[in-house]
Amino acid sequence: MKKMISLLVRNRPGVLSHVAGLVTRRGYNVESIAAGPTENPARTRITLVVSGDEREMEQVTRQLRKLIDCIEVRDLKYSEAVTGEVALVTVAVEPEKRLEIMSLANTFGARIADLDENSLTLQVVGSSHMVDMVITGLAPYHIKAMARTGLVALPIDSRENRESLL
Amino acid sequence: MKKMISLLVRNRPGVLSHVAGLVTRRGYNVESIAAGPTENPARTRITLVVSGDEREMEQVTRQLRKLIDCIEVRDLKYSEAVTGEVALVTVAVEPEKRLEIMSLANTFGARIADLDENSLTLQVVGSSHMVDMVITGLAPYHIKAMARTGLVALPIDSRENRESLL
Repeated sequence: MKKMISLLVRNRPGVLSHVAGLVTRRGYNVESIAAGPTENPARTRITLVVSGDEREMEQVTRQLRKLIDCIEVRDLKYSEAVTGEVALVTVAVEPEKRLEIMSLANTFGARIADLDENSLTLQVVGSSHMVDMVITGLAPYHIKAMARTGLVALPIDSRENRESLL
Repeated sequence: MKKMISLLVRNRPGVLSHVAGLVTRRGYNVESIAAGPTENPARTRITLVVSGDEREMEQVTRQLRKLIDCIEVRDLKYSEAVTGEVALVTVAVEPEKRLEIMSLANTFGARIADLDENSLTLQVVGSSHMVDMVITGLAPYHIKAMARTGLVALPIDSRENRESLL
């Protein structure tokens, strides 16, 4: 079972390390972590994707809530969130096969981020499922390097009046 | 001074917490962290953006190199890397102003990720500079929520034969 957790924390040294320490110390499998600034310079939003069984997952959330610098901890269902991720994927490709990869990239809505004589770097954006799909599509070629930001998510009902409209 | 550090680490519980602990314990200012899977399931790539003076920055890199599960630690200059970031930005907007924001989004190459009666969520992709620019463009409107993945980067010369071509 995979779980997406969205945290709003105070932007203080040590918070990130506390959060990472808490989820990794207990051996939970952290699939990705993405932490960046928010609309408020004093706050950082962290999106974690962790895997494990349901009871373990509930425990993670409970423990995170106890952290003094955590303002908000939310378990997010994919249906209740807007998500996004970027992957950079460098594929080995001889010049004569370049068009083939470019056409594949085009189909996937990926952008050519860089290119040289022997390789091509694509920037892929979308849900994790989308990014996984593109990587599967590129697997028959030689993937030389890859970096993914990890998923970032915003809860849909962080917007006022959402419930009243549904 | 801002610095981008790219780490390739063994995918073991605790590594992320060690890395985060190391950079935050000393009070370095971590602007963003993005950690996700790579082409090798046993490896995770972490991209850190830290700010501080040059000597402090060198120390961070040196300390990270000592971590047993760190396979590669690289200081990355923006000119030597392909970078990318995603931001999700929810803006409060009445229906009659919606077209205005949509046209702004279009200009910036941002995608409408979600929309309801009172707000619009944009997905913005690009370099950190690009994302900052879009956020500045949206600032006159009411930004209700924002999440950024943090920058992810691939060193340009991770590709063979790059040097020989330059």
